[in-house]
Amino acid sequence: MTRENRRPGRHFLQIPGPTPVPERILAAMSRQILDHRGLEFGVLGRRVLSGIKGLFKTQSHVIIYPASGSGAWEASLTNTLSPGDKVLMCETGQFAVLWEAMARRLGLETEVIPTDWRIAADANLIEKKLKADTGHKIKAVCVVHNETSTGCLTRLDEVRKALDAAKHPALLMVDAISSLGAADLRHDEWGIDVTVAGSQKGMMMPPGLSFTAISAKAIEASKAAQLRKSYFAWDEMLALNATGYFPYTPATGLLYGLAEAIDLINDEGLENVFARHQRLAEATRRAVQAWGLEIQCRDPKYYSPAVTTVVVPEGHNADAYRKIVLDNFNMSLGTGLNKIAGKAFRIAHLGDTNELTVLGALTGVEMGFELAGIPHKKGGVAAAMSYIAETANAVKAAAA
Amino acid sequence: MTRENRRPGRHFLQIPGPTPVPERILAAMSRQILDHRGLEFGVLGRRVLSGIKGLFKTQSHVIIYPASGSGAWEASLTNTLSPGDKVLMCETGQFAVLWEAMARRLGLETEVIPTDWRIAADANLIEKKLKADTGHKIKAVCVVHNETSTGCLTRLDEVRKALDAAKHPALLMVDAISSLGAADLRHDEWGIDVTVAGSQKGMMMPPGLSFTAISAKAIEASKAAQLRKSYFAWDEMLALNATGYFPYTPATGLLYGLAEAIDLINDEGLENVFARHQRLAEATRRAVQAWGLEIQCRDPKYYSPAVTTVVVPEGHNADAYRKIVLDNFNMSLGTGLNKIAGKAFRIAHLGDTNELTVLGALTGVEMGFELAGIPHKKGGVAAAMSYIAETANAVKAAAA
Amino acid sequence: MTRENRRPGRHFLQIPGPTPVPERILAAMSRQILDHRGLEFGVLGRRVLSGIKGLFKTQSHVIIYPASGSGAWEASLTNTLSPGDKVLMCETGQFAVLWEAMARRLGLETEVIPTDWRIAADANLIEKKLKADTGHKIKAVCVVHNETSTGCLTRLDEVRKALDAAKHPALLMVDAISSLGAADLRHDEWGIDVTVAGSQKGMMMPPGLSFTAISAKAIEASKAAQLRKSYFAWDEMLALNATGYFPYTPATGLLYGLAEAIDLINDEGLENVFARHQRLAEATRRAVQAWGLEIQCRDPKYYSPAVTTVVVPEGHNADAYRKIVLDNFNMSLGTGLNKIAGKAFRIAHLGDTNELTVLGALTGVEMGFELAGIPHKKGGVAAAMSYIAETANAVKAAAA
Amino acid sequence: MTRENRRPGRHFLQIPGPTPVPERILAAMSRQILDHRGLEFGVLGRRVLSGIKGLFKTQSHVIIYPASGSGAWEASLTNTLSPGDKVLMCETGQFAVLWEAMARRLGLETEVIPTDWRIAADANLIEKKLKADTGHKIKAVCVVHNETSTGCLTRLDEVRKALDAAKHPALLMVDAISSLGAADLRHDEWGIDVTVAGSQKGMMMPPGLSFTAISAKAIEASKAAQLRKSYFAWDEMLALNATGYFPYTPATGLLYGLAEAIDLINDEGLENVFARHQRLAEATRRAVQAWGLEIQCRDPKYYSPAVTTVVVPEGHNADAYRKIVLDNFNMSLGTGLNKIAGKAFRIAHLGDTNELTVLGALTGVEMGFELAGIPHKKGGVAAAMSYIAETANAVKAAAA
Repeated sequence: MTRENRRPGRHFLQIPGPTPVPERILAAMSRQILDHRGLEFGVLGRRVLSGIKGLFKTQSHVIIYPASGSGAWEASLTNTLSPGDKVLMCETGQFAVLWEAMARRLGLETEVIPTDWRIAADANLIEKKLKADTGHKIKAVCVVHNETSTGCLTRLDEVRKALDAAKHPALLMVDAISSLGAADLRHDEWGIDVTVAGSQKGMMMPPGLSFTAISAKAIEASKAAQLRKSYFAWDEMLALNATGYFPYTPATGLLYGLAEAIDLINDEGLENVFARHQRLAEATRRAVQAWGLEIQCRDPKYYSPAVTTVVVPEGHNADAYRKIVLDNFNMSLGTGLNKIAGKAFRIAHLGDTNELTVLGALTGVEMGFELAGIPHKKGGVAAAMSYIAETANAVKAAAA
Repeated sequence: MTRENRRPGRHFLQIPGPTPVPERILAAMSRQILDHRGLEFGVLGRRVLSGIKGLFKTQSHVIIYPASGSGAWEASLTNTLSPGDKVLMCETGQFAVLWEAMARRLGLETEVIPTDWRIAADANLIEKKLKADTGHKIKAVCVVHNETSTGCLTRLDEVRKALDAAKHPALLMVDAISSLGAADLRHDEWGIDVTVAGSQKGMMMPPGLSFTAISAKAIEASKAAQLRKSYFAWDEMLALNATGYFPYTPATGLLYGLAEAIDLINDEGLENVFARHQRLAEATRRAVQAWGLEIQCRDPKYYSPAVTTVVVPEGHNADAYRKIVLDNFNMSLGTGLNKIAGKAFRIAHLGDTNELTVLGALTGVEMGFELAGIPHKKGGVAAAMSYIAETANAVKAAAA
Repeated sequence: MTRENRRPGRHFLQIPGPTPVPERILAAMSRQILDHRGLEFGVLGRRVLSGIKGLFKTQSHVIIYPASGSGAWEASLTNTLSPGDKVLMCETGQFAVLWEAMARRLGLETEVIPTDWRIAADANLIEKKLKADTGHKIKAVCVVHNETSTGCLTRLDEVRKALDAAKHPALLMVDAISSLGAADLRHDEWGIDVTVAGSQKGMMMPPGLSFTAISAKAIEASKAAQLRKSYFAWDEMLALNATGYFPYTPATGLLYGLAEAIDLINDEGLENVFARHQRLAEATRRAVQAWGLEIQCRDPKYYSPAVTTVVVPEGHNADAYRKIVLDNFNMSLGTGLNKIAGKAFRIAHLGDTNELTVLGALTGVEMGFELAGIPHKKGGVAAAMSYIAETANAVKAAAA
Repeated sequence: MTRENRRPGRHFLQIPGPTPVPERILAAMSRQILDHRGLEFGVLGRRVLSGIKGLFKTQSHVIIYPASGSGAWEASLTNTLSPGDKVLMCETGQFAVLWEAMARRLGLETEVIPTDWRIAADANLIEKKLKADTGHKIKAVCVVHNETSTGCLTRLDEVRKALDAAKHPALLMVDAISSLGAADLRHDEWGIDVTVAGSQKGMMMPPGLSFTAISAKAIEASKAAQLRKSYFAWDEMLALNATGYFPYTPATGLLYGLAEAIDLINDEGLENVFARHQRLAEATRRAVQAWGLEIQCRDPKYYSPAVTTVVVPEGHNADAYRKIVLDNFNMSLGTGLNKIAGKAFRIAHLGDTNELTVLGALTGVEMGFELAGIPHKKGGVAAAMSYIAETANAVKAAAA
């Protein structure tokens, strides 16, 4: 292998996915291949198919694809809808934009609720739209749970209530790609019909697997759906999954990793995982506030536990800043996407991370401001440290 | 991780894919994740996108999907064809059956040239069909290069000639999933328009990546193709690949592995890789012949260098036999699929393997006959050894 | 890393240690370093210090050294003896020769019972020597359990009886470097005072750890022993080991591997491990006999379950033969050492191995004879296969 | 393997060795075992035996032991000295204490120059002692280069001058266990006779290998040395090493890692490695000074680039503090040893580390003071950040 240009010490990978992979997952994925039609594979298949449900808080089915999250997006649409069907989408940021473009490309009609990219999906607006749709032309409402580009988290419980209040039969579809394993997600309780997720964010795995958790209503819808699909089709998946197998060769190595990832999350405790993300997110925001900079998410109600997007003062380029940070401190920060390109950068506090890693990252962010000449108040790291120290006793007490 | 029921020593994984993964590839895939939008990733991206072309013997483009081979099948069809288009397919075995079913599912009309599953695609029959299609209703000819279920290899050069002789403008599409890196494949020279392949066979990687090598004619066809696609769409892939990046998160870990796999093959030499497969295949067939058993592929012209399918004498169950072999000798043989289920089993000599591994496997096959009470002559292993020993000097001399 | 000259497929490493390392052990050793003075390390330390005892069948202490087996040899002598002390040794082969040379180098007087290198230590001769030593000048009897150079296994129970019959107070020291985890070894029951072993044979680990299991009598002797030692001194080791720690930095990574190795052996069952070695050894000997070649060990009473040394017919060079095998078949056989250099080679059936691996190896041995022009009868592999197949049902029944 | 009690994110291992192992070294060590008597091994052997010399800046020989650093200590003494020989040692801290105890245990007479454990070895005192030794009873001067327990670095150039000024023929022996790969070390230029080092500090490997670099004068001395040795004897090592092999089974897996470690250091550049350590050490000291705490090393002349030992204010227990840090922030700090047990702790900035890792560690140290109620001024992290940011431009410019 051509020698990579290695730099000493651990790279700080603070992008909102892919996230660092714990060594236990790497080790699991290093096991030799097994016969995907053999008995031993069935044990693994049943184990991951069953275990993954707990992370979605569902009793229904979760389909596992050897594909990126975009594949699961496609699956959610093609399995449930027919050409020309109308879907209601909320443009919360770049990933909502991409999902919407995909919907149109696949032959759906989309209606978009815009935002200024500084809040998540607004349940009130959704409710208004649905109430106006007396003819029930809208077949599905699609929202991004954690909008990775802006760091805004949609209140899915409120969205559910919006559908109920409107007494609208539309399917509720949720992109939880960067929230699964980071923010609470209740597929069954919140009446979600299709939840889309991926392996490379809160699941702490490499990219290459994605998921759709599907409700009985979604399965029912799939029987009439006329959009064409084969690779992503649910029917053959459900049939084969019943015994722990798959209709085509699964990504065996990644499934070993998935089994380990599920164990890791359960060992820590799902609610503990969420609390850890919340705490590290709050520490990060306190740093941003102390620096006197603006958080892209303008309403605390929507703050993301997974990623904080920081607005760079006018006249400064966020990507030039990111390059300075990478070159000097061996840290990757997330880039601003689409309409906030160059104007914002993203600090992820997502996946397999902890206090000192996030604080180390924040020292790099603060020093980077200095080197890049970006106006800021000192003290961001200090503010984050204060918060972490204050809340540390709670952590200790809880553990006692 | 739940403790697997481990058995001592190396498992003999003799199924025709996934195949054993060399430690250098496992090590490459164990590297930490990197930023898929960063500069370092671009270097990796360009390296694999360029390197993979050599294996297809093409100067054109190869698309890399985070998906199983079935995904690349879908890509070949949806990117080039429109609803109702007619494709000519050859039912060479189970994988041809599956591809054909997929074509119908996606809204294509299929015309099938049947076989008895004991030869590969017959170029003469293809030529006849094409000549008869004076209206050029057939938009594509789809053939499986190495039919993994039967161990028959299609003569692609002859198929090309058939199209030329018929002066037919149909696209030529080839499933090379189990032949890439095992049998000679000349995408450009043979005028193939779409070659479909996967990572988990001759490429010696875990499953999870697949490929379409595409000709200029295929790209042209894709501009008019009306079948819906998004995840597998070529246009955005080609646009982003030009700089070494991908339109959605690539399977970073597997791409590390791919870079290593390409190096491994080039280090050995592509033609040496093919010769190695041919030699191990011939040794295996000599064993089968010495046992007095029938090879599923009934015409030597079509013998596969990757897998040998063995017919079990009537009155015996191939799967019961396979279980005895697995239980007693820790070896996985390939099962008979579909119409030859229970009637045949498969011995793979594919991917990262060598003389003693194949001979060790053959001892297990021969002893398994004994244990299962399957009538056979002794001496299969001895025949294979003779052939390997005879040809060993040639190998030695060539190396000198 | 400079590119190694890789050859396709699995290397057949048939030397009597180091032996192939199972992937579970490799994975365990890939864990990150931990603080060797921290609480977590203590858990690991106590676990391996306790677990290793079972493999020696002792209730007493086992010292774990970050050193090769030669280090543990030195430890056995320097901890128990004083300058000028006399030790009785049996020259069973090259490793006995080396241990004896070490004893002299360290200032001991040695008395050697010679053999023709074709049997193991003869208990009768030991008894005679001890009876003659009425003054009890002999302070220790040192025997190699499995003489790795010749493939002869000493009957330790008989040696014990010899000491008892002679009513001699000498310490009994045993080199079990290549027998631990391969042949039955009963440190306590057989009244062994120091058993020396290593990690890289039956323990299936890389080299780098070695062991001394020590009796109460050995500990008592250590209090008066005047040979100088520090690194290998028992006193500080025993003191620190009591809490799970070590007097100097232990080889943390190898200790992770050791914990896994102990689990692997216990999962299979120690007696099953021995039976597996016996069966594979017998298969190998049947092959040698069928070839019409001579086994170095001339008395079946002493046959080794770990390695079979094969005498090459006069006029042929065993090392030239080994090179042909390595070059043509990617298999490493053990070289003949010292007085049998060039005259014999060794086939190991030791550690993490199984039927098809050994049979695959035997095909390489037999084909190598052909290529090297070494006179032999065909049919060695066939004989081994017959034996394995015959005994396979027993294995199956036992498992049922 | 029993499930370790895993905590999320990367553990901060800030002890002065073993240090974190880079993934490239872990991957190298995961390669399968090879025949340590085969040709391929000779290539590896010659490569590491040659490559390691550069790190010691020597043209002479470096012996590689499968042993911890304590083994190489023993080797330095037993290979060069005879029973009753006198050695002059400087008690710079705990590791000097241990080496001295070993010397006595091995039968040497020691003369000790004491310190208050707050400076390194004082060349003036050594010179005085040597001048007083007109009869040349002192056969060796033993100094610890980087005293890991106190964070004081001996000025070896001055020690060399002291010997020269005294015109004393004593051998100069240096413990560079925690300085190799962290601080400049010039075996030849400084006329060192034996330099002792280990794998698990600046070499970034797991523990298990150690080294003695030896001068021609040391080799000459070894011919007359009467202390007993076998495992650590140089004569057989030198004889076998000449061809790339070893007199007993080497720790193959660790040697793979060593080859990679040498490459990693050379890729970065040895002087760059030293500069990196110096910079991170200075940042750490600035933090300690800003906190208003005392650095154990009381004279800046002796500041260590590898580790900073911090004195805890009276009335506070350093180990209780360390436990709070470990429990709350998943960071291991080094304990105070021997006479400073409970009174000091150690922050390592050693091996494969970088700016953000050290700064992250310092945030943990500072927050730990808060939680433990240890009086301190805030601003340590801020001071370290300022220094790192200031010097970052230099780093950038140098790279440009």
